[in-house]
Amino acid sequence: MATNERDLAAVAANSAGHLLTLVRAGRARTRGELRELTGLSRSALLQRIDALLAAGYLRTSGVAGSTGGRPSTVLEFNDRRQLVLAADLGATHARLAVVDLAGRPLVEHVGELDIADGPEAVLRRLTADLSALVDHAGARLEELCGIGLGVPGPVEFSTGRVVQPPIMPGWHDYPIREHLEAELGRPVLVDNDANLMALGEHATLGLDDTPLILVKVATGIGAGIVIDGRVYRGVDGGAGDIGHVRIAGNDVRCTCGSVGCLAAVASGRAIARRLDGLGFPTRSSRDVVSRLHAGEPDAIRLAREAGQHVGEVLATVVCLINPAVLIIAGDLAETAFVTGVREALYARALPRATRHLRVATSELGQRGGVVGAVRMVVDELYSPAEVDRRLASVSG
Amino acid sequence: MATNERDLAAVAANSAGHLLTLVRAGRARTRGELRELTGLSRSALLQRIDALLAAGYLRTSGVAGSTGGRPSTVLEFNDRRQLVLAADLGATHARLAVVDLAGRPLVEHVGELDIADGPEAVLRRLTADLSALVDHAGARLEELCGIGLGVPGPVEFSTGRVVQPPIMPGWHDYPIREHLEAELGRPVLVDNDANLMALGEHATLGLDDTPLILVKVATGIGAGIVIDGRVYRGVDGGAGDIGHVRIAGNDVRCTCGSVGCLAAVASGRAIARRLDGLGFPTRSSRDVVSRLHAGEPDAIRLAREAGQHVGEVLATVVCLINPAVLIIAGDLAETAFVTGVREALYARALPRATRHLRVATSELGQRGGVVGAVRMVVDELYSPAEVDRRLASVSG
Repeated sequence: MATNERDLAAVAANSAGHLLTLVRAGRARTRGELRELTGLSRSALLQRIDALLAAGYLRTSGVAGSTGGRPSTVLEFNDRRQLVLAADLGATHARLAVVDLAGRPLVEHVGELDIADGPEAVLRRLTADLSALVDHAGARLEELCGIGLGVPGPVEFSTGRVVQPPIMPGWHDYPIREHLEAELGRPVLVDNDANLMALGEHATLGLDDTPLILVKVATGIGAGIVIDGRVYRGVDGGAGDIGHVRIAGNDVRCTCGSVGCLAAVASGRAIARRLDGLGFPTRSSRDVVSRLHAGEPDAIRLAREAGQHVGEVLATVVCLINPAVLIIAGDLAETAFVTGVREALYARALPRATRHLRVATSELGQRGGVVGAVRMVVDELYSPAEVDRRLASVSG
Repeated sequence: MATNERDLAAVAANSAGHLLTLVRAGRARTRGELRELTGLSRSALLQRIDALLAAGYLRTSGVAGSTGGRPSTVLEFNDRRQLVLAADLGATHARLAVVDLAGRPLVEHVGELDIADGPEAVLRRLTADLSALVDHAGARLEELCGIGLGVPGPVEFSTGRVVQPPIMPGWHDYPIREHLEAELGRPVLVDNDANLMALGEHATLGLDDTPLILVKVATGIGAGIVIDGRVYRGVDGGAGDIGHVRIAGNDVRCTCGSVGCLAAVASGRAIARRLDGLGFPTRSSRDVVSRLHAGEPDAIRLAREAGQHVGEVLATVVCLINPAVLIIAGDLAETAFVTGVREALYARALPRATRHLRVATSELGQRGGVVGAVRMVVDELYSPAEVDRRLASVSG
C-alpha cells in the first residue's frame, strides 16, 4: 500500500477538527446539517460538537428555522480569540502587526533592529514592542490565538529554532519559540522570512494548489516554495536556501564561512560592499536601493550583474520546480536588479519551463512577511490535526 | 480561510473510497469495526459498503466471531483484478512486466526499442508485446487493474501526452494514453521515466513523507521528485527537467534545439559523441558504459567531467529541495560518472544541505521504472478520490 494511502487510512476522518473546518468554511451551520454532510451517527456527532463547544472553538448563536421541523441551534466559529500578532524580522528592520483572522491589520509598526545584537537583546526588545503594540490596538494578549514570527535564516519549524543562520550571528539553536511562549503566554510559530513571504503572496494571489516560488533579495538571499498551498520546508527546514550555492568563477568569502556563495556576490550586502570599495560610501542593502533610485551608473551596473547571477541560479530552480509564478521580493525587487534576473533566467532556462511562467515583483511589498505570518498561524492552529491534538490533550 | 483548509472542508470524509482504504490497510475487517472506527451512522455506512461490493472493490469472505455478539461478515479487498502491466520505455530499450498488486513480478521482458521510430510504430509493437506478455503470464487483459507506462520525456500527466520531448522525435502531443486505452481496453497512466523511478525507489526505501530526488543519466538527463509520498510534477508536468538548464562556458548544440544544455555536455549520448570524436567508435550511452567497464582512460576522464557538470546543477537542486535522499540512476550510475557528481556536489552545495543527505545509487537498478509504474497505477486507481469518482459515474 502506498505511502499517501497509508496516511489517509490513519486519518481520523470527520474528527472534531474536521467538523470545525466545515463550520468555518460555511458548509454547515447546525448539528443537523453536519450530520447530513458527514454521515456521522448522532452520538458521534454530539460528542465531537460538545468537545468543540467546551474548548471554546465553537459557540452557539440563536436558532435557525429548519424546514418543517423544530428550530435548531446555530453553531458558529468562536472568534473570541480572533487576533494574531505577526512579526517579520529582517537583518536591519522589523515589522510588527496585530491582525484579525480575516487578515485585516489593526495596528502596524516598522522599526530599526539589528539582528546581529543576538537573540537575548533582540527578543527582549521584541517582547516589549509586541506587548506595547497589543496595548496600542486596545487588545489583550489573551485575545491572541497565536503569534507568528519570520526570521532571516533557516528554521527548524517543529522546534522554532534557527539552524546555522549565515546573517544571524549568535542565534544558532536558540529556542526562539520557547522563549517567546514563556514571555507572552500564547502559542508561537517561527519560520524563515522568505517562506512566510511566499505563503503570503500565494494566498493573496488566490493560487490554491498552484506552485509558487518567491526569492527574497535584501541583506541576504533566500527563497520560499509553496506546493499544494503549503510551505515546502524540506527534510530539515533548509528548502529554498539558494543563497549559499557556489557560483562558478567566484572566490569571494561569504558570511556563512564558505567561499563563492551566490549571496557573497549578489545580495544587497554584497553590492553595498562593492560600491563601498569603489569609493561610494554604502553600508547596507537599503543604501544600495537609494543609490539605484538616484540613478547612479555604478550602482545600476552592479545591481544588474548581481541580478544576472541570481537569474542563473533561478533558471535551474524554475526547470526543477516548474512553478506557475516566480515572485522577486525584498529591497532590490523594483530596481535594475530585476532586469538582470530576467535576462539570465530567460537566457538559461528551458523555454518550456518559462513559457507559462509568470515572473513578477511582490504584490504585498514590505508587508508580505506579516501577511504570511498571519496565514501560518491560522493554518497551523486551526488545522484539523492541531485542533484534535489540543482536544485530546485537554481530555487526556 | 487557507487553501489547504478549503480543500479539507471540501473532502467527503469517510467516503466509500476512504472506507476501501481502511479495509486495504487492515484497519477494519467488518461493518461493525468500520462503524466503530469512523463514527458513521449505520445507514450511511451500509450504503457505502454496498456500493463498494456492487462495483467489485470489496467482496465478502466468511464470518468473524465478534466478542459476545453474533458473527459478522468479513469484508476483503477484492483482488480479482490484481495484476498491473508496467512498461518502461527508454530511448533504446524497453522493459515490460506483469506484476501483482503486492509488487511481485509474474513475468518480465527486456528488449531493444528505438523511441525515434515514432509513436505509431513504437506503440503498435508495444501493444503486441504487452498482449503477448499477458498471455505468457497465463493471464487475461480483463485481470489487469491498469497499465502504467514510463517514457523518457516530459509528460502532461492528466492527459497522458508528452510535451516537446527532446529525445522522442515525433511524439509531441501524441495521445499515448488514449491510443493504448483504445487498444488494450484497460485504464492507462503515463508518466516521465525519472518520476516513476523516483517513486519506485521512494517506496522501496520506505521513506513515507521524506523527500527524495532521483536523477537519471542515460541517453538523456532527467530528475524525479517525490514529496509527501507523491511525485511532484509542477504546474505543467515539467518538474525535474534539469537536462536542459544551460551550463556556463558551453556552446554545444543540444537535441532540444537550444545551445549549451546540461544534457548536451553531460548525458550518455554527449559522452558517446565526444569519445567518437576522439576516434573511439561509440554510438550510445551503453557503449560508453562498456568502455568504462573496460577501464579506458579517456572514457573515465570524460565520464567524470560529465559527472562534475551534473553535480554542479545538483548542488543547487539539493540546496533548494533539501531532500533526505539523492539517488543517481541510469546507465552511468555505477561508474566514474558518480565520482564526478559527488566531487562537484560536495564542493558546491552548502554543507548544511549535504550534512544529512544520503547520496546513493539505485536500489532497484534497471527495474526502478517498472516498480514505480506499478506503484503509480495502484496509488491512482485505488485512491479514495478515484474510487469515489468511479462509483459516482456508475450510479450517476
